[in-house]
Amino acid sequence: MRMREQFEEQLEQLHREVTEMGNLCEQAIALATKALFGGNDQLAKEVFRRDASIDRKEREIEDLCMRLFLHQQPMARDLRTVSAALKMVSDMERIGDQAADVAELSRYIGDQTLQSKVSLGEMAEATKAMVNASVEAFVKGDEELVKKVIQADDKVDGLFEQVKEEIMNLIYQRDIDAKASLDLLMAAKYFERIGDHAVNIAEWVEYSITGVHTNNEHVNI
Amino acid sequence: MRMREQFEEQLEQLHREVTEMGNLCEQAIALATKALFGGNDQLAKEVFRRDASIDRKEREIEDLCMRLFLHQQPMARDLRTVSAALKMVSDMERIGDQAADVAELSRYIGDQTLQSKVSLGEMAEATKAMVNASVEAFVKGDEELVKKVIQADDKVDGLFEQVKEEIMNLIYQRDIDAKASLDLLMAAKYFERIGDHAVNIAEWVEYSITGVHTNNEHVNI
Repeated sequence: MRMREQFEEQLEQLHREVTEMGNLCEQAIALATKALFGGNDQLAKEVFRRDASIDRKEREIEDLCMRLFLHQQPMARDLRTVSAALKMVSDMERIGDQAADVAELSRYIGDQTLQSKVSLGEMAEATKAMVNASVEAFVKGDEELVKKVIQADDKVDGLFEQVKEEIMNLIYQRDIDAKASLDLLMAAKYFERIGDHAVNIAEWVEYSITGVHTNNEHVNI
Repeated sequence: MRMREQFEEQLEQLHREVTEMGNLCEQAIALATKALFGGNDQLAKEVFRRDASIDRKEREIEDLCMRLFLHQQPMARDLRTVSAALKMVSDMERIGDQAADVAELSRYIGDQTLQSKVSLGEMAEATKAMVNASVEAFVKGDEELVKKVIQADDKVDGLFEQVKEEIMNLIYQRDIDAKASLDLLMAAKYFERIGDHAVNIAEWVEYSITGVHTNNEHVNI
């Protein structure tokens, strides 16, 4: 097989594996959310299993990237695509961790009616969509999807502030105990972080397309 | 200049730049901690400036790694070192973000005496030491330091649980308002995450030395 053909094949494999890893992330988020809204311990364990699969998938993709670097010595956009994949999988791995963190919390939140008093479900939905779009942006090389992900993050950040307000009101109204209030806040923070990681992924997609890496985070000066 | 010499020189530059980035991370953590314990707005802004420098440094190191991949086509351990650097800087960039998050919070915690009622100072010290050790491990290729970082993370995780307990007690004793309690918890979480990122860096150092990447996080099944 000619080098280029072999490269194209490995690149396709890379797209396939990144997509699979993205699917695992989405499943982990969905299952963690279900666990948070009144699930049982089995659901939490399902999330931990997804997280473990995500970790394995990260190693596989890293190995594939190394093989591509080593044997194909890619140039220009190809080099950027492989490098972007190598960086993206770090963010996807963290998404799996955050979903596992949510699942872990779900085991300890006693009062299962509290979750629906704050906007956690909306956060979960929004971040799942962001992860989906960021991976699709990579596979399709779609800059419009990149922009969509970056815009969606403002909504998620707003929802995090909203959940914080909602929890504070529950505390003021003595409708929640101290531990549950902290746990709910942490859950919201984990979803907010998933959004941040989706933005990182999208930024890497942008870099692989344009060669320019912008940083849309933390404009807090 | 012969290829190998040029490579050695660029590798040394890589070590130098990663060390600089590590120093910036440590400064950001120290300044953010100072801001949290009764600082002024100027201190917070100093952290944001460090965070911006860290972001720029990440791009520079990534560019250097790309040049190394492209022109030197490193093999075996050299390839692992460059790949590890490329991955490590993601974690360092996140450390800068977390320090900026702490600095951001410091602007809004009204009662500056609260911080010293919880073990946040200890968390800050411990995580700064972890970041320092993980970068030193990379530069020196020191597996003992890698182990030290991974062990230190257990202490930081324990401190996070301790801070959570301390905050809950403050809430029960009505010694803290709802907003401040959530802000303090978030600050603790940011430090805990800095510890996680230091572990990730250490794991990449281990990979660059041994070729095997273990994952010491999230053993929650």
